Amino acid sequence: MACSIEIICVGTELLIGKTLNTNAHWLSKRITSLGGKVSRVTVVRDEVNEIASSVKETTRRKPRFLITVGGLGPTFDDKTLEGVAKALRCKLEIDDEALKMVEGKYRMYVEEGRMEKAELTPPRVKMAKLPEGGKPLPNPVGTAPSVIIDCEGTTLVALPGVPSEMMAIFEGSIAPILRQAAGDVTFFETSINVTGVVESEMAPIIDRVMHDNPYVYIKSHPKGSEMIPKIEFHLSTTAENSLVARKYISKALVQLSDMALKKGGKIKPVKAET
Amino acid sequence: MACSIEIICVGTELLIGKTLNTNAHWLSKRITSLGGKVSRVTVVRDEVNEIASSVKETTRRKPRFLITVGGLGPTFDDKTLEGVAKALRCKLEIDDEALKMVEGKYRMYVEEGRMEKAELTPPRVKMAKLPEGGKPLPNPVGTAPSVIIDCEGTTLVALPGVPSEMMAIFEGSIAPILRQAAGDVTFFETSINVTGVVESEMAPIIDRVMHDNPYVYIKSHPKGSEMIPKIEFHLSTTAENSLVARKYISKALVQLSDMALKKGGKIKPVKAET
Repeated sequence: MACSIEIICVGTELLIGKTLNTNAHWLSKRITSLGGKVSRVTVVRDEVNEIASSVKETTRRKPRFLITVGGLGPTFDDKTLEGVAKALRCKLEIDDEALKMVEGKYRMYVEEGRMEKAELTPPRVKMAKLPEGGKPLPNPVGTAPSVIIDCEGTTLVALPGVPSEMMAIFEGSIAPILRQAAGDVTFFETSINVTGVVESEMAPIIDRVMHDNPYVYIKSHPKGSEMIPKIEFHLSTTAENSLVARKYISKALVQLSDMALKKGGKIKPVKAET
Repeated sequence: MACSIEIICVGTELLIGKTLNTNAHWLSKRITSLGGKVSRVTVVRDEVNEIASSVKETTRRKPRFLITVGGLGPTFDDKTLEGVAKALRCKLEIDDEALKMVEGKYRMYVEEGRMEKAELTPPRVKMAKLPEGGKPLPNPVGTAPSVIIDCEGTTLVALPGVPSEMMAIFEGSIAPILRQAAGDVTFFETSINVTGVVESEMAPIIDRVMHDNPYVYIKSHPKGSEMIPKIEFHLSTTAENSLVARKYISKALVQLSDMALKKGGKIKPVKAET
């Protein structure tokens, strides 16, 4: 049973098309590579009720982890923790450890000559207000601490939306927990291109290969132009170790290639996307 | 009252981090520019139950439109319409008009010498199976028709996931309906960069400007390096015409700039992202 994870991205900028959601992409890729299963991504606006209702709906589905991204900063539109507190029916309280983290950051900025005053103004104190029961996680890059809190079996982690901060906290504090929760599993994937056969002719082939290789997930992505049909097949699996994972994928790949060749298709490798 | 729209993206490739969700980004930007309000984006796997439950949850929130993206093709993992039918408790039926669209496409491909046989194999017929009550919309680029269906006040539109097909159907069939539903409203946005002031010092300024300009949405995006604080402020509004929209934005922009200058910040224009 895979370790299921949901992601909630908070940010109106994502829903007006100003910002491309590279955070969800990066997290999904990273979580999958650690053996976790991202079961859903939800994107909501910077509105307390929207954040609260999406958190409530998600925790009802009982994923092992819920990661929220965005809305932790000092400004009025950073409302994620307010939304989480509303969903969990608890209060936001100044957390001493979080306040020390925030204070330490501003003192460091002053020492480095980046600003004049380290005083804890209300917007700065805001970043240290956590939902009751929440623990702060250090932010090695920015100012706002991340938060981890238990929600009846789901571990909720609130990450900031600035990509460099989100990545640093994920790698430092979350990846080790996830790796342990996912157990000893490995994700492995590969792709091939088949040209000269249209997708509707490949459909029964994929059905057959999927049937014969129950551990392998195959997805077809039509990439051709009007005149030259070209389909990318992406094969992926999660297995107990990388040797087994590669064996699963190889077997399916050989069968798929053989059947595509018999239909008159040509097989080409796909350059890895990074 | 803005015309609210939810988007459901169907595709396991999005949740394993193989594919970046550029479809949601493009649609959000386009819908916003037409005066619509994207209230939520949900991304689910190619699983019938996941699709069905996300459709049910969404229609319960009663947006004016629900746009699904992906999962309309001929292969076994194209399950969107099966999920929609399950959510609406109706059957999938072969639609004569949709079947003619699919048949016509394959006949054209044969005439153009792109394939040998135009016969309607089961995977091809699959693309013409619509939820009861659904109407097919022509796909000018690919083979699978799009579908439009009423769900108790929410208009559900199922678009294919191949970006060129999704965009063509949106522009041809959906944009005109949306524009009408949104009424005569215009979306207008602009950005400025403020350097030399940290976000926590700008927070009370934004609060003030937002308070004085209730129609303008302001979002701050920290973009600075460790040593040089730089924040991009994005101002946007939806108004009855472009003159009013520009007036709203200008007024807020002047106030924000004045207050940032007084804090010792420097103002710079932002190059438009496309």
